[in-house]
Amino acid sequence: MKTARYHGPHDIRLEETAPPDVGPQDVRLEVDSCGICGTDLHEYRDGPIFVPDEPHPVTGVTAPIVLGHEFSGVVSETGTDVSRISRGDRVVVHPNVPCLDCHYCEEGTYRRCNASVAIGLQTETGGFAEQAVVSERQIHRLPDAVSLSAGALVEPLAVGLHAVRRSDLRTGDTAAVFGAGPVGLAVAWAAANAGAKRVFVSEPATVRRRCALEVGADTVADPVETDPVDVIRSGTIDGVDVAFEFAGREETIDDAIRSTKRGGTIVVGSVWNRQPGVDLNEVVGAERELRGTNCYGFPPRSFRTEFDAVINSLANGDVDPDTFITERIALESVVDAGFERLLEQGTDHVKILVEP
Amino acid sequence: MKTARYHGPHDIRLEETAPPDVGPQDVRLEVDSCGICGTDLHEYRDGPIFVPDEPHPVTGVTAPIVLGHEFSGVVSETGTDVSRISRGDRVVVHPNVPCLDCHYCEEGTYRRCNASVAIGLQTETGGFAEQAVVSERQIHRLPDAVSLSAGALVEPLAVGLHAVRRSDLRTGDTAAVFGAGPVGLAVAWAAANAGAKRVFVSEPATVRRRCALEVGADTVADPVETDPVDVIRSGTIDGVDVAFEFAGREETIDDAIRSTKRGGTIVVGSVWNRQPGVDLNEVVGAERELRGTNCYGFPPRSFRTEFDAVINSLANGDVDPDTFITERIALESVVDAGFERLLEQGTDHVKILVEP
Repeated sequence: MKTARYHGPHDIRLEETAPPDVGPQDVRLEVDSCGICGTDLHEYRDGPIFVPDEPHPVTGVTAPIVLGHEFSGVVSETGTDVSRISRGDRVVVHPNVPCLDCHYCEEGTYRRCNASVAIGLQTETGGFAEQAVVSERQIHRLPDAVSLSAGALVEPLAVGLHAVRRSDLRTGDTAAVFGAGPVGLAVAWAAANAGAKRVFVSEPATVRRRCALEVGADTVADPVETDPVDVIRSGTIDGVDVAFEFAGREETIDDAIRSTKRGGTIVVGSVWNRQPGVDLNEVVGAERELRGTNCYGFPPRSFRTEFDAVINSLANGDVDPDTFITERIALESVVDAGFERLLEQGTDHVKILVEP
Repeated sequence: MKTARYHGPHDIRLEETAPPDVGPQDVRLEVDSCGICGTDLHEYRDGPIFVPDEPHPVTGVTAPIVLGHEFSGVVSETGTDVSRISRGDRVVVHPNVPCLDCHYCEEGTYRRCNASVAIGLQTETGGFAEQAVVSERQIHRLPDAVSLSAGALVEPLAVGLHAVRRSDLRTGDTAAVFGAGPVGLAVAWAAANAGAKRVFVSEPATVRRRCALEVGADTVADPVETDPVDVIRSGTIDGVDVAFEFAGREETIDDAIRSTKRGGTIVVGSVWNRQPGVDLNEVVGAERELRGTNCYGFPPRSFRTEFDAVINSLANGDVDPDTFITERIALESVVDAGFERLLEQGTDHVKILVEP
């Protein structure tokens, strides 16, 4: 089968590899669409980060590997023990598998798992390939109303939904989102969808500010032109209830803190290249809270998760996938029209889908 | 009356001033004991910080002022509208008065008040004086079982109690406290008293580590000799549930973060002289939470507060005030035997009480 394999930074190669085997509890997918994630870009530019450079303790895998963890497809083969999924099912993949064995899994907080494995980063299989093989318990079926390309958005939308759940935002609250990349936009959507009274988005890229308004933001600000904290504070009584930091810059973490009211919550989801200075006096004196958010729930089975909530929202039309999908490309073009373009003109895009 | 008045950094003068007037809702106290707080020391060394250098917007007060906000006394005069407090009552003062008028007071979250006034920092009256005049609603009566010197500890113990409440620590959890000054010790006590299964304390000063064990810590570590994170992680499954940062150093905030389990909470109560670098990847990836804590609840009346809980604990013998009180001095000695000594050999002491 055709694959795009990651060998190291700036080195993704189109290769012909043997299709992976299907174990008793696995299903084989013909991959339809796979989004390029910021994590994939980090691996391409600065990696290997999550890709193991020594054999992975659980999977034994090391580079070269197939990247891609935001993907949908059609089931073409099922293992002998698979009962819930059938050939022809249109599905999306939950990329994380908790170990079920560590202290956290033992107490049921699977998403804290110490040894979870991420598909498309730490496994042989990934979304930038014609086929992928995954365990049945990682599969969510898509209803007819959700297209396969929309299915490839379930993962990033679930990250946004989870961030909003982490914030304990209540309907009627106000919210601010710093950074409107795919996940920032997903957060803005999820906050509006959660009943936020007013959603502010601070983002320098014009295309992304426009998308923010489309997904439910009420007010957008260009931080290059105006001080977003002024915009937010003058539009609220004493700042927002919740701010979301998804830009990953030292100044945005401080802006996010200062945009919240006393006692407000700042949810941080960025990955940091270097340790930012944080004005902790603003956290201490006003009793604010800084909460990390990472991915989404990892259930031991695939039911009852944030993935299902997002799939429902897509089926109900709560969110328009076309706002997020700014380009569709073939697997053959993944380097030039995908990774390289996102590095060069990333902010002109939201999500580029690769269609193997 | 005799007072010790703050004129500016390193300038506290013993002066004779006119006793303040008693308004209709006020009571006059003959001050018995007043603790020297870290906040007072900050004003003395680096101030004015909280002391207004222009007339305070609410009280109109500016330096020179009488410092001291951790104090007890005996009521010697009551205003015409005072009904709940009588002459001869032994009492402790709640130093903070919310404005009752701002957005936060309006919605009932008084401790977020935007314009609260702190006695002994922003008022004419303070504890380093023979007499103080305060509003009846700031007065808590002491039961017979609680001495007046123990009464002067109610405020710092309430700061510790409040920090533990901010942490959402549950009985059976594990906790670590970084920094065992008076408030860090109060936190260690409050955590143990809240049913923490194991309380670790990291503190370089020998005297304070000994006090930590006396107030309920199970394990103490000298961070100069050993890595407290190693001690904590090797004594728990994967770190403590809750860490408390009361040392105010860049390395202790990172130690506090790394000492907690995935999903753990770090409560920060230090005042920061400069903005520390914070390893936010440890917050994001493991979904930890950093929560600010500041003082204690500010009720519109003095009932139902963390002060009452601490007074009950002192009455029940849950905490021994003599562990905290390492010295008692006269008002005349407040500079040399108080402020200067704490600056020079602070870590040999926990709490110095001034007895006007």
